[in-house]
Amino acid sequence: MNDSSKRILIVGLGLMGGSYAKALKSKGHHITAITLDRDSVDYALSNGIIDEGDTEVNDGYVESCDIAVFALYPHTFIEWIKNHGRLFRPGTLITDVTGVKGSVVGEVQSLLPEGVEFISAHPMAGRESSGIINSDCSVFKNANYIVVPTEKNTERAIRTCEWLGRELGFGRISQLSPDEHDKMIAFLSQLTHCIAVALMCANDDEQICNYTGDSFRDLTRIAKINETMWSELFSLNKKYLVDEIDSFTEQLSRLREAIDKDDFDTVKSMMIKSTERRKTFDKDRRK
Amino acid sequence: MNDSSKRILIVGLGLMGGSYAKALKSKGHHITAITLDRDSVDYALSNGIIDEGDTEVNDGYVESCDIAVFALYPHTFIEWIKNHGRLFRPGTLITDVTGVKGSVVGEVQSLLPEGVEFISAHPMAGRESSGIINSDCSVFKNANYIVVPTEKNTERAIRTCEWLGRELGFGRISQLSPDEHDKMIAFLSQLTHCIAVALMCANDDEQICNYTGDSFRDLTRIAKINETMWSELFSLNKKYLVDEIDSFTEQLSRLREAIDKDDFDTVKSMMIKSTERRKTFDKDRRK
Repeated sequence: MNDSSKRILIVGLGLMGGSYAKALKSKGHHITAITLDRDSVDYALSNGIIDEGDTEVNDGYVESCDIAVFALYPHTFIEWIKNHGRLFRPGTLITDVTGVKGSVVGEVQSLLPEGVEFISAHPMAGRESSGIINSDCSVFKNANYIVVPTEKNTERAIRTCEWLGRELGFGRISQLSPDEHDKMIAFLSQLTHCIAVALMCANDDEQICNYTGDSFRDLTRIAKINETMWSELFSLNKKYLVDEIDSFTEQLSRLREAIDKDDFDTVKSMMIKSTERRKTFDKDRRK
Repeated sequence: MNDSSKRILIVGLGLMGGSYAKALKSKGHHITAITLDRDSVDYALSNGIIDEGDTEVNDGYVESCDIAVFALYPHTFIEWIKNHGRLFRPGTLITDVTGVKGSVVGEVQSLLPEGVEFISAHPMAGRESSGIINSDCSVFKNANYIVVPTEKNTERAIRTCEWLGRELGFGRISQLSPDEHDKMIAFLSQLTHCIAVALMCANDDEQICNYTGDSFRDLTRIAKINETMWSELFSLNKKYLVDEIDSFTEQLSRLREAIDKDDFDTVKSMMIKSTERRKTFDKDRRK
């Protein structure tokens, strides 16, 4: 362990917790983990993904860590902090990977003892599979990492959280407020998952995979979805998500009317706009 | 040139014509090409993609080919056949890459001289860029190739068209009637392009690429779209496309209502269905 290495506790060794552990262990940090599933602990230990692991809330890990990363479902995260948050010693920094922020950040901040700071973050990388066995920190490469501070956060915590994003290998670190984050995520992530689910539900022909090209494959990759986690995320962000579904449906309906009425000037103008906007993504490192 | 090699004429050296030329030239066939753009001919010749090329309708190429592949916009294809179809000698097989079939296949078949057979096909592979400079026959690997015969086609022509699909490197060769094809393509390809366009039109925030993950990138890759070609394809397949947009919108609206009313049993059941259906794609060679 070198001088700059930290003791990092990861709570929840699923796909994302496992990917964090892999990335941070490879940087020389000391990684402890608490997760319900014994097999996940055993897998992580025998594959050198963590240094120590427990299926119980191990007081030693909690009290001795510099940074704790929570990779749990939102309600489980809040319950955990309610039950065990008092164990953290002052000076500990807590962060998370939760997909919605407004209903989580304020509550977690209010539950923690004096001197223990929670700075929220959202790693915009994942996979349509779950479990530590599918964890892979290469998905962080060039991906976006959003730090989501509130007015209660210190500059030091924000800087440490940004450092963590870089340490994990993310390509771009940005900042959004919890509200900005939830609105953005309703559009970029939750709406796209709704579209993929609706698209797969719209056709019951079992032969479609014999005829499809890449476009349908790309649009439905995320139709393989963890219904428990995503239902919770949708529920917690319902206000923004319903708005974003409506605004997308309005554009699709506009396109449909134009096609139906042979108004191909409108069709073309929408295509030109979508092409221009999508091109800005290609100036980015990823396509 | 070995015994089994053929003289293949490609009309239209764009992204798809160029990719056909590359694949077929590498198999030892003699490739001629007719295309409007001099730069495309020069590029193809200097890069060894074709054996001979012309910007004019070269009677020699037309009269001497075994197989002619048309990689043109639908109306340009029909116009070409009207003006020059009589030049083909009996025994020549004509095929295409056109994205809609019902409004094309019957008309082209009726325009050709006795003994010249048109067997339609749709290679389900492409790229969100255009021009021979972006052509790439590796996109055919493991992709789907749909032969679209009518009752006028001979068994010999169907077999030759299937052979061509294999020769190009496609992974699976299927057959659909023109109507089945157009309905299938309205769902698998045209609807997905409509969704991508509507999604990019639904948000004018120029910063979204700073926050996005792979799901939004995947869903909008095809939002970079050639507005002239796709408007023509949408127009020619309007009946099926409007139906498919409606049926997708109905599912999305069902999901929206369930989220709005906290009916997460329905949300979960749709997610479970989408997950099950999408998994059948993974039994396939491509994800």
